Amino acid sequence: MKGNMEKKINKAANAMRELRKHLVGSVLEDDASCFRASLDNLRLSSLPRAVIVIKDPADVGVVLKIANKYGVPVTSRGAGSSATGSAVPIQGGWVLDLSALNQIEIDPVARIATVGAGAVTTNFQEQAEALGLFYPPDPSSKNYSTLGGNIACNAGGMRCVKYGVTRDYVLGLNGFLADGSPFKFGLPIKKYVSGLNLRDLLIGSEGTLGVITSANLKLIPKPEKRWTGMFAFKSEAAAFKAVVGLFKVGVSPSILEFLDRQSVSCAEKFTGKAIFEGQSRSSILLIELDGCPAEVRHQRKCLLDYITGFAASHREARTDAQAEKLWQVRRTCSQSMFSLADTKLNEDVVVPLEKQAALIRYTIALKNEIGLATPTFGHAGDGNLHVHIMYNRASKADAKKAKAGIHKLMQKVVDLGGVITGEHGIGLAKAPFMGMQHSQAEIAAMHSVKKALDPLGILNPGKIFEPFEVWDHKLVDVQLPWDHR
Amino acid sequence: MKGNMEKKINKAANAMRELRKHLVGSVLEDDASCFRASLDNLRLSSLPRAVIVIKDPADVGVVLKIANKYGVPVTSRGAGSSATGSAVPIQGGWVLDLSALNQIEIDPVARIATVGAGAVTTNFQEQAEALGLFYPPDPSSKNYSTLGGNIACNAGGMRCVKYGVTRDYVLGLNGFLADGSPFKFGLPIKKYVSGLNLRDLLIGSEGTLGVITSANLKLIPKPEKRWTGMFAFKSEAAAFKAVVGLFKVGVSPSILEFLDRQSVSCAEKFTGKAIFEGQSRSSILLIELDGCPAEVRHQRKCLLDYITGFAASHREARTDAQAEKLWQVRRTCSQSMFSLADTKLNEDVVVPLEKQAALIRYTIALKNEIGLATPTFGHAGDGNLHVHIMYNRASKADAKKAKAGIHKLMQKVVDLGGVITGEHGIGLAKAPFMGMQHSQAEIAAMHSVKKALDPLGILNPGKIFEPFEVWDHKLVDVQLPWDHR
Repeated sequence: MKGNMEKKINKAANAMRELRKHLVGSVLEDDASCFRASLDNLRLSSLPRAVIVIKDPADVGVVLKIANKYGVPVTSRGAGSSATGSAVPIQGGWVLDLSALNQIEIDPVARIATVGAGAVTTNFQEQAEALGLFYPPDPSSKNYSTLGGNIACNAGGMRCVKYGVTRDYVLGLNGFLADGSPFKFGLPIKKYVSGLNLRDLLIGSEGTLGVITSANLKLIPKPEKRWTGMFAFKSEAAAFKAVVGLFKVGVSPSILEFLDRQSVSCAEKFTGKAIFEGQSRSSILLIELDGCPAEVRHQRKCLLDYITGFAASHREARTDAQAEKLWQVRRTCSQSMFSLADTKLNEDVVVPLEKQAALIRYTIALKNEIGLATPTFGHAGDGNLHVHIMYNRASKADAKKAKAGIHKLMQKVVDLGGVITGEHGIGLAKAPFMGMQHSQAEIAAMHSVKKALDPLGILNPGKIFEPFEVWDHKLVDVQLPWDHR
Repeated sequence: MKGNMEKKINKAANAMRELRKHLVGSVLEDDASCFRASLDNLRLSSLPRAVIVIKDPADVGVVLKIANKYGVPVTSRGAGSSATGSAVPIQGGWVLDLSALNQIEIDPVARIATVGAGAVTTNFQEQAEALGLFYPPDPSSKNYSTLGGNIACNAGGMRCVKYGVTRDYVLGLNGFLADGSPFKFGLPIKKYVSGLNLRDLLIGSEGTLGVITSANLKLIPKPEKRWTGMFAFKSEAAAFKAVVGLFKVGVSPSILEFLDRQSVSCAEKFTGKAIFEGQSRSSILLIELDGCPAEVRHQRKCLLDYITGFAASHREARTDAQAEKLWQVRRTCSQSMFSLADTKLNEDVVVPLEKQAALIRYTIALKNEIGLATPTFGHAGDGNLHVHIMYNRASKADAKKAKAGIHKLMQKVVDLGGVITGEHGIGLAKAPFMGMQHSQAEIAAMHSVKKALDPLGILNPGKIFEPFEVWDHKLVDVQLPWDHR
């Protein structure tokens, strides 16, 4: 036993020695660097042995070859804004910090960009817009999140209802397989069907199948005009009736966001005034239309003609500043929930469009049952609602209730024909629910693919397939760059 | 040796016995049925032992379990319009005929359809259009091809330049894994990131990883208006200069088709008159714009303002009938090539947008070098050109030249930064070129995934990974439903 342990320690020391030798000046081993790389937005900390700052994509291949030789776990990291712990080096080992690979090149004629894994989503969007182009995927972490992370999680956002998710914009991926060999799956061209589609298999695989260092992304023309409106409803049921009705009358919103009365109530308490005067505690829809001016005009008319029968009140933005004020309502809801409790479980579930009202009824029932608030908002245009379970992390009783609540919620989502995660991925946080969503044969198929591409299990081990209970672990109280509190 | 052979024959007989017992009335063993299922549009025939007409998706699981037990190859089949031999049971065994699984259900509110693998693409498009919806992928075989086949090959078509390929419309896949277990990867919802993305891995896998029995497909609103124009250019170089320029001035065509002078010349000889009077043997662009009427008007103006400086002549369609007449030109080019020789190698290569002119120069050089015609047309909006090499199949000398030509062409495409197949897939026909496109490590990774999901190698064996030279095999002279000759 003792001999084994000694062998293991020697092996780890040899691995570090070889790493330092090959990546001079790129290996961070100090406490602060290791702590920073030990957690993501889930706020569960697990220290790596070292952080490797990747300056040249080829370094990834070098690191992986050493990691293979010594069996060292390797976890890729962008900004660490993942909500599920997918960026946490839960088995220690090495963290690859890819944030320096942040180049952005745009071919405005072919409407194709080549971006480094570490390029920040918003930076890319802004550069595209300056050329009259548009990159729609907009996860709420977009001011910090990297495109590599977006791809690894197949990130979504608010505009998916019209424009799809990250996957829909990925043409090619470059990076390294587990054994350190470089790969190029797809190219900066719009059609590609050569061989098995490992490009798309890597999308959403959370760093468990390979390391992405750069990507070729599709861009589309920037919509000429945008219009934003906010609508108040007496109940969530009325809001969802309007959602379904809008699609029936042919409206195609670019954003269709929903806020339940619990969320609105938090925001109103926080700001001290009603969002719609005299109608506090409404359920709200925030709607954006985009396209050419004539189309937006036509869609606005369809929308208003229809919705007047349902909404208790509405407000339109006539300027960008007014639109920004409407969006501020949505952001305030998110921040103000922390007045309910200090910890927020943010569950990015999806149910079929017409099942959203049933899901909201269930969140109310759940709130009454477990005695924890369940404020919910989200992307009602594609049934992707963020159900939050608020609890105080110091209270063991609360944590137990939260755990019970989340299990029930996940089962309900699956029963409604939905999915346990629409944009965050599995990571650690959703691992216990894989068996609710997928049959044993499906999980075995996924696992066999994982083993085929990473036979030694060095890439982001402990994720997706292994049971993990977040609630049994202490979360860290830390201020992250995207915290608004 | 003799004992082994006997064992093998007994095993095959037992497999057939068990199959007949479990699928009473669904197993066809007659010569005509087996011959029909022995080939696809590549026209290379390899007889299966039996054809199984799948009436209920669950039957697929039953067949696969028996096939596993006895090691019988199983090849899935829709309409058999594949251009690469991907539907040919090259190692015999059983063919699953999925064409009876042709249900089409459309939820017009969620804009999501559930279709059987055997539903014909055009039927689905028509049903969607009747509800004001649009399914853009339009492979040229769409009047016959099935959606299961489209998904298995990740089919493209003419509208990809604006609307993407089949993959971009697939939300969920239902079917059976190699061992006969049912799978459901994805759901009829628009966001889904649970577990490894085997849904997208199956797209384009040509029946080598599983059997798809039904799919959930995304629909989009039907564009209100369409406009079509045809433009003549003195040279291919001028046509491609216009293609690049159009994108520069912000035109977003829904179709942008190119015809080289060899193709146009064939059509003009066939019909006996010039497509543009007084300008015979032009290179041609066929352009469709779509969207709301104001947007189409604006785009048309941009297009005409720009292109007038480049095009020698143009013609606009003012009615649907006139548009149909313009499209007839494209179809005539395709059919009339058979006046050059009786066999057409149709290579669906893709190069970056700005490399298309270089590719056309190469097709001319190749024509001069090998002495076979190389008429080329295709989807110039996404660099996806169909380079045809015409030869007479009875001539061994011709076949040898064609073989040499195709190898050179593929290498040129890869050298230009392109891909050997943009919409047909690998199948048998492109298998020799996998090593040009992909590194050994990439192919090994793909192969390891194949082995992980189909350890016994029963699903469509002999495809993608195994070297195969179509030119060394006799092609069959047979009239297929989509032949216009």
